[in-house]
This record gives sequence, structure tokens and C-alpha cells, in this order.
Amino acid sequence: MSGELLLLSNSTDHGAELLAHARDALAEFYAGREVLFVPYALADHDGYADAVGAAFAAAGLRLRSVHTDPDPAAALRAAEAVWVGGGNSFRLLRALQRADLLTTIRTAVAGGARYGGASAGTNMACPTLRTTNDMPIVEPAGFATLGLVPFQINPHYVDADPGSRHMGETRERRIEEFLEENDVPVLGLREGAWLRVSGPTVTLHRRTARLFRRGRASEECAAGTDLSFLSAVEPGFDVCQFSSWPVPAPSACCRPTSRSRPAAAPTAPCGTSSSARTTSGTVQAPVRSCNAPTANGPAAATT
Amino acid sequence: MSGELLLLSNSTDHGAELLAHARDALAEFYAGREVLFVPYALADHDGYADAVGAAFAAAGLRLRSVHTDPDPAAALRAAEAVWVGGGNSFRLLRALQRADLLTTIRTAVAGGARYGGASAGTNMACPTLRTTNDMPIVEPAGFATLGLVPFQINPHYVDADPGSRHMGETRERRIEEFLEENDVPVLGLREGAWLRVSGPTVTLHRRTARLFRRGRASEECAAGTDLSFLSAVEPGFDVCQFSSWPVPAPSACCRPTSRSRPAAAPTAPCGTSSSARTTSGTVQAPVRSCNAPTANGPAAATT
Repeated sequence: MSGELLLLSNSTDHGAELLAHARDALAEFYAGREVLFVPYALADHDGYADAVGAAFAAAGLRLRSVHTDPDPAAALRAAEAVWVGGGNSFRLLRALQRADLLTTIRTAVAGGARYGGASAGTNMACPTLRTTNDMPIVEPAGFATLGLVPFQINPHYVDADPGSRHMGETRERRIEEFLEENDVPVLGLREGAWLRVSGPTVTLHRRTARLFRRGRASEECAAGTDLSFLSAVEPGFDVCQFSSWPVPAPSACCRPTSRSRPAAAPTAPCGTSSSARTTSGTVQAPVRSCNAPTANGPAAATT
Repeated sequence: MSGELLLLSNSTDHGAELLAHARDALAEFYAGREVLFVPYALADHDGYADAVGAAFAAAGLRLRSVHTDPDPAAALRAAEAVWVGGGNSFRLLRALQRADLLTTIRTAVAGGARYGGASAGTNMACPTLRTTNDMPIVEPAGFATLGLVPFQINPHYVDADPGSRHMGETRERRIEEFLEENDVPVLGLREGAWLRVSGPTVTLHRRTARLFRRGRASEECAAGTDLSFLSAVEPGFDVCQFSSWPVPAPSACCRPTSRSRPAAAPTAPCGTSSSARTTSGTVQAPVRSCNAPTANGPAAATT
């Protein structure tokens, strides 16, 4: 992992103007640089560019939207700073794929361009789209994203409402389902929080986050926490695949040894670098990963 | 469209046992038939089959899980009734794709097998996965689903909470984003509701739903509404594609003529058959579809 990144959970805090909550952080992160805006997560690129341009101007920053450039790829190659706006992450990813901009952005960031994003823009910085909250309104050609960090982020992370009568999965349950299938840490970034990544250093800012790891109870992370150990993880996707799945006995892989969550957290507290687990492979070594006891029990059949 | 379908929004109503709210409907729908259960939306197939088997037994029905069969495809080909359980719809679809069961189920239903499902099982009955609420925890080989009905359903449909401080997209906004990209009706099935489909006849049962159509204000549908006009729609996906998108001027396609929702609903009330719009194509005729005024305005840049 390398690069200078600013990854926001959300663009707008409740009751505040667009990006106002992060104005100082944006001003410091992009200081003196012209920012190239990627608006493809929303349908109305002109309107979106106007709104974000005004928000950046309030932070003393110049912003230009890539959709107005006759050659977006060339503009991104030459960019010294990029801002990828929120919206629908499936729509955004498909646009980047179609214009062949994923590699372009990745190369630019490796070459020193600063990358910032919010919500869908933060999803793009992860290895895959697999922890987005968005509806899959269009079909991208695969879920691989930029991979600027080796772990997954869930933007707009929200705790379960104990008073809710809605029976859809909680956010926590959705992430637990992700961890049934994948061995990759997921940082649930609460609204108002962001990550500042500088090479191998990862720091949580302004608000709290919840960290989910396969085989462990989830952990609370305070603002200011050093999460640099996350830059060293080796993500393991599809660790529960069998070549002949679902024939035979497909349920053997992901079945946890216990249905109940451990009463006490079995791990070191959030931010301890020794706690990063890795997996040696995906399909090659499913048993090692899949038979480990996990705090992520099966869903109650309430869906 | 053909077949006998029972499509539930959810498996469990708040405070009730699994499938208890639909027990009588299940008993009537499957009367006298052995039901083959498809458990692949959850990781723990054995546990899921036990729970659903008990719920079906309470309705006087016999249920057998396809995951215990040495040849799931043969079992589905021979089935007289199928129940597809809820869980993660991406995981479910990938399992069906890998075992090549989509065509098998489609053929069985066309041949008279009764198809029932809840949540992810209801998503499967639609043309695509594009209106699921689930996290894309695994990557299916495409979003095409069974297409037993020609319109989209959003299970667990939930109205926006006016008191919420959370800034993630509301369900309504997510469906509006779907309609920016696709010209397919979306029926938001509130929890506790279900659809009974019998050939061309589609009826809403027990609870209300909200119907979303491109270019129209959304409409409320009462329990008991005849929605058979939905069986005649011609779904138009990706109606905003340009071959060279996003170069040039990618925002021209989906830009609505007005940002504000019309004050009065411009359409006939929910259930009127004459209101089904069709599109003549996708890539071939984007301008006709895309330049139409729409009630689904662009997102505010609040994501």
C-alpha cells in the first residue's frame, strides 16, 4: 500500500452543508493543488460538479470535473489530486471500468497524486465493492475496485436501532455475512468519521468506527486510533469456495463451531498491530480459514 | 410470464415466528405438494433447513432441502413445488449459477412447479438482482435472475424515517436511482406483504406496497390491489447507456427536465392497466427513453 488518501464515510453530516464537516481536513489535504473531480456516482454530472466545486471553494480549493474534459484518462494521468464523490457505487464503478480509468487512477496515486473520496469514493479505494451499502442498479464488469488499501471499508456505518420493528438485516449482520465468505477486515466508518492514510500509516479521525474481523468479536475504535496494522493485512476473498459447490455438502465450509457470540472479546483491543490475521490463500486453503471458530454465527432465519 | 408464484417480502414479521404471518397462505399455495427447499442464501444450510422445515410443518407441509440431495439439479427438475429462502441474494444467485440451477428452476416453473420465496427468494423471481437490499458479499457471474415476472420487486420496502439523522440514501432514493438507469417498474413490498401470481394475474396481499415507475410519481397500493398490468410490462434495462460513455458528455442522458417532483401525480392510480409504459430498446434507442421528463430527479449531493 502506498499513497496519500483521505477517505470520508459521508459527504454531508446531518444538518450541515455538503462537506462542511471536513472542510479543514480537505483544505489541509489538498493544499495548493488543483483537484480533479470524478462525478460518475450520480446521474447529473453538471449539477454534482457545481455543488462540489462550491464546497471546495469554501475550503479555498480549486476543483475541475473530469466529465468536462475531452479526454478524462489523460486528465487523470496528469492530475496532482483527485476527489471521487459519493452516490451509487455500482454506477461509479461501471463508469470507471467503461472508460478504463481504474488503472489510470491507481497509477496516478502510486505516482504521488492525492486521492480523496466520500462514501462511494471511499468504497473505490478498497480492494472490492463487496462492502458497499448501495443498490446494484447497474451491473459492473466485476467488483474489483482500486485497491489503494488492502482492507474493506463500510461507509455510513450505522448501529442497529433497538427500537426498530424492521426485519431487514442490520448493518452488523450484513458485515458478518461478508466475513462468512471472506477473510478481510471491514472498518465500519460511522458518519462524520474519516481515515487519513499516508503510506503505511492509517489514522481514524473525528468520529468512531467499528472494526470487524473474521473469527473475532467486533471492536470499537475511537477517533484518533492508529489503525496502521490494517495496511499490512493480506485480504482473503472467497475463502469458502468449493470447486464443486454446492455439490456435495456445501454447508460444511462456513459452519461456525458455535452459534453464540463469545461473551468476552477474544482479541486484543482495536489498534493492536499483532492482531492482524492473514490467510495463505483462498481456494487453495479453505479448510484452514473456514473451520476456524468464528464470532460471526449464522443468521437467524429471519430474513 | 407464466407460473404459480407466492412472493413474500420477508420471512419473519416483527415479534412473530418464522413464516407464521404467511402460514395459511403457504398451506393453501402448496397444499398436498412436497416442497423442495433452496437454502443457499444462508451459510448454514442444515440449520436453515431445520428452521424452515419446522415452519412448514406448522402449516401442515412437508419440506425437503435440496442441499441434502446428491443431485440438486435432478431434484429440482422433478420438483412439484419449490421454496427459496431469504438471506443474502448475491450468495444465493452465485450458488444457483455455479450449480447451473437457474435454467432448471425456470423450466420447472414453466412446467407447472409452484415457486415460492421470501426476500432473496423473491428477488430471484425478478428479471435481475438490481433491486435487492443486500450487501454484495460475493460476486455472482452477472445479475440476471429467474425472470419469472417481468418487473422488479424491492423486498422489505421501508419508508424514510423523518426523524433519522442518518445520511445514507433512503430506500425511495435508491429506487429512484435504479429508475435513472432502467425503465422497469419496481414494486416496493412492505414487510408482511406478498404477491400471488397466477399466470397473468398478479395480486397484492395482506399489507401495502409502493409502486415506482420511471417518469412518474410513485404510487401507493393497498392490500388486495390487482396488479396484473405489471405482468405485461416490457422491462428496459440500461436505458441510459452511450456506447462511448462517459466520453463525451455523459450527463446528457439521464438529466431530468426538472429537479422538482410534480405536485400532483401525473398518472392513473395504482392498478390501472393502461399505465404500463414500455421502451422499444436499450442501447438502440437511448434518446427516446432518456430524454423523457422524469419525476425521479437527481440526488442531492448528500451521499
